[in-house]
Order: sequence, then C-alpha cells, then structure tokens
Amino acid sequence: MSLQTQLPPSLIATLPGHSYTDPEIFQQEQAKIFETHWFAVARADEIEGPGSYRTVDVGRENVVLVRGRDKTLRAFLNVCRHRGARVCMEESGTGLRRLRCGYHAWTYSLDGALVGAPNLAQMEDVDRSQYGLIPVHLREWLGYAWVCIADVPPSFEDTVIGAVAGRLGSPEVIDDWGIDKLTVGRRITYDVKANWKLIIENFMECYHCATIHPELTEVLPEFADGYAAQYFVGHGAEFGENVQGFTVDGSEGLDHIPGVDGEHDRKYYAVTVNPQVFINLVPDHVIFHRMFPVAADRTVVECDWLYMPHVVESGKDVSRSVELFHRVNEQDFDAAVRCQLASNSKGYAKGGVLVPSEHHIALFHEWVKLQLDSEHSMDAQLGAGAGHGTGLELDAGAEFGHA
Amino acid sequence: MSLQTQLPPSLIATLPGHSYTDPEIFQQEQAKIFETHWFAVARADEIEGPGSYRTVDVGRENVVLVRGRDKTLRAFLNVCRHRGARVCMEESGTGLRRLRCGYHAWTYSLDGALVGAPNLAQMEDVDRSQYGLIPVHLREWLGYAWVCIADVPPSFEDTVIGAVAGRLGSPEVIDDWGIDKLTVGRRITYDVKANWKLIIENFMECYHCATIHPELTEVLPEFADGYAAQYFVGHGAEFGENVQGFTVDGSEGLDHIPGVDGEHDRKYYAVTVNPQVFINLVPDHVIFHRMFPVAADRTVVECDWLYMPHVVESGKDVSRSVELFHRVNEQDFDAAVRCQLASNSKGYAKGGVLVPSEHHIALFHEWVKLQLDSEHSMDAQLGAGAGHGTGLELDAGAEFGHA
Amino acid sequence: MSLQTQLPPSLIATLPGHSYTDPEIFQQEQAKIFETHWFAVARADEIEGPGSYRTVDVGRENVVLVRGRDKTLRAFLNVCRHRGARVCMEESGTGLRRLRCGYHAWTYSLDGALVGAPNLAQMEDVDRSQYGLIPVHLREWLGYAWVCIADVPPSFEDTVIGAVAGRLGSPEVIDDWGIDKLTVGRRITYDVKANWKLIIENFMECYHCATIHPELTEVLPEFADGYAAQYFVGHGAEFGENVQGFTVDGSEGLDHIPGVDGEHDRKYYAVTVNPQVFINLVPDHVIFHRMFPVAADRTVVECDWLYMPHVVESGKDVSRSVELFHRVNEQDFDAAVRCQLASNSKGYAKGGVLVPSEHHIALFHEWVKLQLDSEHSMDAQLGAGAGHGTGLELDAGAEFGHA
Repeated sequence: MSLQTQLPPSLIATLPGHSYTDPEIFQQEQAKIFETHWFAVARADEIEGPGSYRTVDVGRENVVLVRGRDKTLRAFLNVCRHRGARVCMEESGTGLRRLRCGYHAWTYSLDGALVGAPNLAQMEDVDRSQYGLIPVHLREWLGYAWVCIADVPPSFEDTVIGAVAGRLGSPEVIDDWGIDKLTVGRRITYDVKANWKLIIENFMECYHCATIHPELTEVLPEFADGYAAQYFVGHGAEFGENVQGFTVDGSEGLDHIPGVDGEHDRKYYAVTVNPQVFINLVPDHVIFHRMFPVAADRTVVECDWLYMPHVVESGKDVSRSVELFHRVNEQDFDAAVRCQLASNSKGYAKGGVLVPSEHHIALFHEWVKLQLDSEHSMDAQLGAGAGHGTGLELDAGAEFGHA
Repeated sequence: MSLQTQLPPSLIATLPGHSYTDPEIFQQEQAKIFETHWFAVARADEIEGPGSYRTVDVGRENVVLVRGRDKTLRAFLNVCRHRGARVCMEESGTGLRRLRCGYHAWTYSLDGALVGAPNLAQMEDVDRSQYGLIPVHLREWLGYAWVCIADVPPSFEDTVIGAVAGRLGSPEVIDDWGIDKLTVGRRITYDVKANWKLIIENFMECYHCATIHPELTEVLPEFADGYAAQYFVGHGAEFGENVQGFTVDGSEGLDHIPGVDGEHDRKYYAVTVNPQVFINLVPDHVIFHRMFPVAADRTVVECDWLYMPHVVESGKDVSRSVELFHRVNEQDFDAAVRCQLASNSKGYAKGGVLVPSEHHIALFHEWVKLQLDSEHSMDAQLGAGAGHGTGLELDAGAEFGHA
Repeated sequence: MSLQTQLPPSLIATLPGHSYTDPEIFQQEQAKIFETHWFAVARADEIEGPGSYRTVDVGRENVVLVRGRDKTLRAFLNVCRHRGARVCMEESGTGLRRLRCGYHAWTYSLDGALVGAPNLAQMEDVDRSQYGLIPVHLREWLGYAWVCIADVPPSFEDTVIGAVAGRLGSPEVIDDWGIDKLTVGRRITYDVKANWKLIIENFMECYHCATIHPELTEVLPEFADGYAAQYFVGHGAEFGENVQGFTVDGSEGLDHIPGVDGEHDRKYYAVTVNPQVFINLVPDHVIFHRMFPVAADRTVVECDWLYMPHVVESGKDVSRSVELFHRVNEQDFDAAVRCQLASNSKGYAKGGVLVPSEHHIALFHEWVKLQLDSEHSMDAQLGAGAGHGTGLELDAGAEFGHA
C-alpha cells in the first residue's frame, strides 16, 4: 500500500473524507476499536466504598461498575440475563448490597453471581453459574477505571502503559505526577459535533497552534513555530520566560505536585493513548480527557483538571488554571467541527494532505485502518503500536502532539 | 427448529436482541403483521352520524373512517387517486357530504365512489369506477372499528373473536360485558420508547407482578406468586378478601355491568388479541388497550376505561378506578423501556430465557416468526393461532397473562 | 417504455410514490441533477465590491462565492485543500483580502490560488498550483449567480436561457424586464416538508388553481377554468377586467418596469427552469423562486419580489403586491405537503394520473428519469429539454404552468 502516490515527499495523504461521515464505518469503529481496546470510563474514586456503582457507555454498550464488599471494583454489561432489562437505570449511587433487576427481581451479588430469582428454587435444572452478569475486563490505573468489552483484551501493559511510556521515555516517568492520588478540581463535558478521529488528529499536531491558540502559544512559545509536535521522546515544551504557571494569563499556578521537579519543572507534556485518552502534564496539575464517541459526527469529551487534594479541599481558585485549557479545548473542537462540515464534500472525497509537522498523524491513520481490516485485532494493534509495517518512515518520537 | 438447544427444560430462549431494534425487521412487521391482520383503530361511537369521520394510522398507512348516509361505517386509504394528496387532513370531523380532495377537488361520495372532478365530463374515456377511494376492510365489534389493510383479510372470526374465545372458553362469554354499549370514561395515551413486542410479552406474564405492581397484587393476591399467568382457559383472578372493587386502594368501584355476575363477579380477566389489543374485564368496567407501533423503539398505546353509560353521564368520580391500571400501565411501560435500552447489547444478542411461568410467551414468538417467514400469512396465522407445529408443548390455557 | 399501459388517452401515469420518499433516490437526484445542472444560488448584488462573499448550499456541497479585486464573481468548494476544514464559516461578509482557513492558516487569493501557508516555504517540492481552492463554474444572468458543481457543465445557453426562451418565444423577450437591474423589495424563505418534484409539478399546472387559489384566480380569471396551463408559447395570462394590478386585492400595483409594455402589459407569465428556478413576470415586478432541496421530504424555497430600484428605495408599500403570491406560495406548498404525506401509501405505490391539463408534467418526469438513468447527463438533458424521444406527443408549448 502506498499512501504517497503522486504526492511529493513533503506531503502524505490523509484518510478519505467519508471515513469521518459514513455511519457504517463508525459502527465498525465501535466494534473493532472502542469495544475492543481499553477504554477509560470513570475516575475510580467516584465509585468509593462497597456497593457504590456507576453506569457508563463504552462503544455501543452500557456497563455498570460496582465496588464489591472486598473493595474490588468490577464491571459488568448492564443487562439482566433473564429478559434483557437494563439492571441499573441510574447513573450512579451508593450502598448497594445486591444488583437486583427492577423487572422480575433476578438478583446478582456485587461480583455478578446470580444469587436469587422468584421461583428459582423450583427450577432445579437451571445452573445458576451460567446466568451471572457478564463480566467486563477492568483495570485501575492513574486513578481511572479502564474497561475492555472484548472477550480477550489486549495487553494493558503493551497498549495503555506502552503508549504513555513511548511518549515519556519509560513507564515510570508518569508516576512522578502520582495521578491516582490527585483530586478532580473541575470537570467540563463537551458535546462536539465532529468525528472522534478529527479530535485525535487535532491533538496530535501543533501546526495549528499559532493560528487558533493565542493563549497557549503565549505560555508555550515553541508551540508557535508550527513544528512543536516533532519532539523527541521525553521532550516537554518549555514555559515562556516570563510565564509563572500554566494559566490563561501566565500567572502563577497552584501548589506543585511534590514528585514533579527537575527536568519536568516548567514544562508541559502531552500524551495520547489510543483510542480515547489524552493526558496533559504540567507541574501543578494534570488534564485528563476521555472521549465517548456517539455517532460518526458526534463525540462527547469529558475533561478533568486534577490537582493536589489539599488544593481542591482548601477551595483555592483554580479558574485561571482551568481557563487556559478550556479555551484550548473550545478552539480545538471548533476546528474539528469545521473539518466535519466539509468531510463529505467531493473536494475532500480523497482526503487532504499532511505537512511534515503532521506526518506522524499517518501512523494513527494506519493504526485505525489496521483495526478495521483485521479479524484479529490483537495482532493488528501490537503491530501498529510500534509503527511497524506501515511503510512509513518517521523520525523517532514523532508520534505525539501538542495539546 | 429447536429453541431449547443447550437449555434445561425450565428455560426457553427468547427472540434475539436485534428483533427489538432492527429497523428492517420493524418494516417487515409493519407489512406482514400490522398491515395484514385486523387492527382496532377507534371507538365506533366516536364516528357517529352520517358524514362523521376520523383519520388513523394503521401500520404505515393513514386510513379515513367515515360513516355513510346509510349509517354504515367504511374505511379507505386516505389518498386521492388523482395525484396522491391526503384527502382528509384533520383527525376528525362531522357533517361531511362528500370527501373532496383539497388539491384539485376530485370528489368522492361517502362510500368512496368518484363522483366528480374539474373537467371530468370532458374526459369521456375515463372509467370513474376505476378511480374510487381504495377501500379498507372494516368490522365493528365490541364497539370498536377494526380495519384490515390487506387485500384479503384473515377471518375475523378465527383470529380476533377466536383469540377472545380461546381465552375465555367460548365466544359468547365476552358478551356479558356488553362492551359495545359501554362508554369511554377516560382515555390515556402513552408514548412508550419500546418495541411493541416487549409490551405484548409484558402483558402476557405475571412473573414480574410481585416486583413492579404493588397496587395490583394487593387487589389480586394470586398475582403475587409469580405463577399467575398459568391459568386454565376461562380462569379469572380473584379479588383479595378485603378488596371491594378493582380500584387503586381496593375501595368500592362503580356500578356493575348488569350482565356480569355469578362466576365473573369479583374477578379479573385479561385477554390478548394479536397483534395490538389487550382487554381487561372486571365487574364494573372494561380496560381496552390499542397499540400503534411507530418505530422499532417506539409504540403509542391508547387505553380506554369503559363504564356503564349512566356512570359516565352522571359525572361520577372514576379516578380511583382509572388510577389502578394507569399505574400498572406506567409500571409495565417502564419495564419495557428497560428492556429496549439493553436489547442491542452483545450480552443480549442471542436473547434471554423464559422461565416456566413465561413459557407461553414462546408461542407469541413463534407466531411473530411465522408471520415474518411466510409469504402466505393466512396459513401462518391459522397454524400459529392454535399453537400447532411450533415444537412447543405447553399446558392448555397457558397462552395468556396478567395484566 | 410505455407510460400509458392500461390508461385511457385522457390519463398519463405519474411517477411512482417512492420517487418522493426514497432517500436513495434523493441522493441520486442530488448527484445527477442538482450537482450537475446550473443552480441559481444568490442575488449577485448581494455580493458587491471586491472581497464580498457569501456561502451557499448547492446539492450536498457548500460553495463560497467571492468577488475578486477585478470585480469578477467566482465560486469555490468551501473546503481547504490541506485538512478539509470549511474555509468560510459565515453566511456572508465583506472586505476579504484573502481566503484564510481558520484551522492552519492555509491562505488563498480571491481567485482561489494558494498563496501561503505556515512553513510552506520549506516545502519546496510542493507545487502550489495543485492546491488552490477547487473552482465551481459560475455565470451571472438576470442578476443572479448561477453555479454548476459538475466538472463539465451543460451549456448555460441551451439549458437555462433555452428554458426561458422556449417559454417566452425567444431569448430576448425576458430582457424587457431588465431583471438584473431590479432590486429585491422582499424576500421570504419557506421551509416546505415536501419533495422538490412535488413543488415543480405544482408550479407546472393550473388544474388546481380554482380549488386552492381564490385570490390568484380573481386577478387572472382564465386560471379558474382548469386549462390555464395549456398555453401556446409566448402566451401570458390576462388580468381580469376590473383588476388594476397584480396585487392581493386587484388594486393598483407599483411603478411599471419601463421596458414592459404593449403585449406584456396587464399580463402574467410563468417560467420554469429545471431543476430549481421559477420566474413570474408581471408589468411592475418579477417574482423569482429558487429551491434548495434538503431531503427527500424537505425543500427550502427562497422567493424574491423584485421591483424598480426607486420603488424599493422610496420605501413604497409593496405589501399588497407581495401578499398575492405569498398566499399562492403558501397554498401551493400546503398542497405539496398533502401529497408528500400520502406518497408512501400502498394506494400510491404505482403513482396516480395526470389529466389533460397536466399532461405536460410527464415531460418533467421524463426529464428526471433521463437524468437519473444517464451516465452522460449532458446527452440526457439535451434530449429531454426538447421533449424528444419520450414517447409523448404533447401540444406545442404545453411545457409550462400557472404560477
């Protein structure tokens, strides 16, 4: 396969326009990407204490996460095994002792086992172990619950942790931020009328930064040159000389995270974990995006600003801190909507072009294509994760972006 | 065909999940079920007097019912034979002398014949008898107008009256309620975000009654044991000992219907007439549900509470009487929505299971499948109506439900 | 092909019902009709002065019209060649010096050439001439901008001017109204829940006039006889004896257009230009309709009332003048909605019939079918425009309508 047919070396073709608009392709992406890979759904400390639960959408499924009496967090398809009713109708709650379907009272323990149903005692031939709630794979990492709908999940270490390690240089670097011990100081949910891939592509490059991000380029001057994405592994973007913190006006931020100092001080790191997580690291906070694709032309993005617990508890004003990336988000999502609007034009039927500072986006496109083509998505993602076999030759470390 | 593969005798498989969500299946159900069978559309006394009319949706068609000068009620496709305009735009009206299309004034008599059009006199070669409104089969029974869109309707006696007779033991039993002489005391319309089959399945069983119907099981204690549906033919559910009437608090109901006494007194009967009518019979009133399927995931249900005419005319308070089944309806429709929400989960892709007190629902599933499979829906429904050839062995009289 | 199978000579079959409801057919019509033919999008004087622009929908495309420094009006697909963002997001504006994409600042001159982009200087292998905005064919005529999305447009002279000339007798006749020098006195936009073909069919005949247009038939009495459409080429409908002007109450109109006198005085002419323009000519104004098809069952119609510039500038009351055809529009669009509602009935599955005063609508149906059937739409339209090869024998001049 040759993406570069008839294109000069400076340019690489993008995906064709219909990739962003075709409902059939979106259904395949739901099945082969969002329902196959690890998917960060919720902050784990939102489901604290035995019997706490939360329901979330993952791909086209609704999943219930519930913490057991043994304090373990578990996830299940939110479907009763009897007649298919949704078991938990509420978005969240606490104090459950059992999961009881509200239709016929089939009842499951917090670890999913069927423990009772009306007249079940008289049905001696029914093997209860066959009728527990269907479990969904779950991992807690960075203080988030990550679930995988697939029967056999990809390696969490290779795909999720590997993506972070590939960006930062090693899997341990991110531990400096102690993200699992931070607290959500602000959450903003964005309902974006654009395809999820446009949002990833945007996040991966900074060729647009000078055009649409005046505040961000003020704080991170190197983002203004259009080449900001071509970092080497482990590179962070340096704050501007007179910038005191990662805030909308460059004023001082909040209390620094103790583990973050030395080489990470006064720096900004952005990490993409396919298919739906972006993490931004700065000295005093972490910005954690999770995408929830809803339709070919609609994506909900939930964005958390995480601070040291005492910062949040003390009620300190985080608004200038939040405002910077909130503006970046709005600027980026407006750009994604612009692209969505024109994606089905005959002028974009074959797609557009990536300039050198965007070439690494082609790796993401290859990754997407491999997921969709492959019957065996495991193989596909392992190959793609390392960028092998794509026919692309990119600079080392070119796989990540700006923002 | 074997539904019971790998299932123990206590369990029977349901329909697969996509039966409730696939728009293509819903279109087939419209064509082969709702536009093929008898469909109860309106209370006949709402279209009283020559020239009274009403328009209703039946499957994907709009039908106009109009009473002629001979007092006969007739039904037609609501489509002008000239350029296809909808002839009657209003939902109802009175005093029509002709059906005149509002576009080019093609004009039909109340029995559908083309009687005039601008310049028609000059078109001598046009055979007017070929351009009358297209008639739709119509029967009046139990005070309702039942129509059938099919060219050749199934036998009304075998399918509609037969369903009632099969439940009550003979076709005459329902005459005791004199339903055609009762008056609508209250009509409530429900817009339910669920597939029509979920509503029928719910109506057919009482395994859920103890869980979701506290008021109903108070009035009908035997409904609390989960086996209420397994009646024999002709069995009615007995009111509780201290219950005075079929009301939300068990207090006394309205004046009894004179013909209902002896074995039917202090009893409740529920009858399902596929594909869209439920009838509940109690000593002082009748509750008559008609379903109008709108989409795979949406069904409008119109429910009438019918009383003795003098009860309605006197303005007596029927609210406690209405409230009981209004609550049951809301409880049942909430349950149907729960199922709809999870129907497209991979956890329900192959469907769920029916416990013994629900086994008769499998007959309904067989009936649905026969309609969809068959080119000759006549044969199919006759076979299915009697439960023959389905491979299912059920107790006699197990074909009906609770509510 | 024989449309007249089993029909008497007085009747000709219409298109089948699904032609008006099938989303797939609508997509084909977008591709083979609206994106292939000349399409009138905007009043040219709304885009006055260098750097003025306007964005419009044409078929499924969004087009930007912009006037260059050389005062030439040009049109482009509104899609950036880099990553496919919509270049102009606003509906209109003035004073542009460049077209600059708001995502990555790729910048085009007003004639569409790529003139700059961040870091473009470093990409020496990129041939800028390959990355200009994609031009869309544009013609100005009658004071409107007409665009054509097709790579090779049909002859403007044969299709657009030819349609007008065919109706009025010669291409020069319409010059008498000097439409390009008139001014928009009122614009009304209608959002019609009906297929675009129903609106054209309605415009083409006057068999409905007596039924739905009381005001119009008062002003143009010959429209009341149902045969009004069967004019000869060049025929205009005469105002009624006591009618002073083309107003809702027959009262005097506005100042006459100087060139219109003699044979055109006290007369009304209607012209249809397939696929989306209707023009009405009266002595003191011109009514110019443009249709924008949005979905199989939805069409936006923008209607301009054009007067002598001094009439509009003086602020004279044009309301009685506007009101006449505004009512006609509402009456006609209501009729189209009636037809839309019943188009998917089995009673209209094979369509309806055209009476003699509607027979010329069959030529429009043939034209539509030829567009959809043909790979080579150029041939098709040339053939159909002349009514050749359709198997239809119609009176000369029967190709146009009432209103």
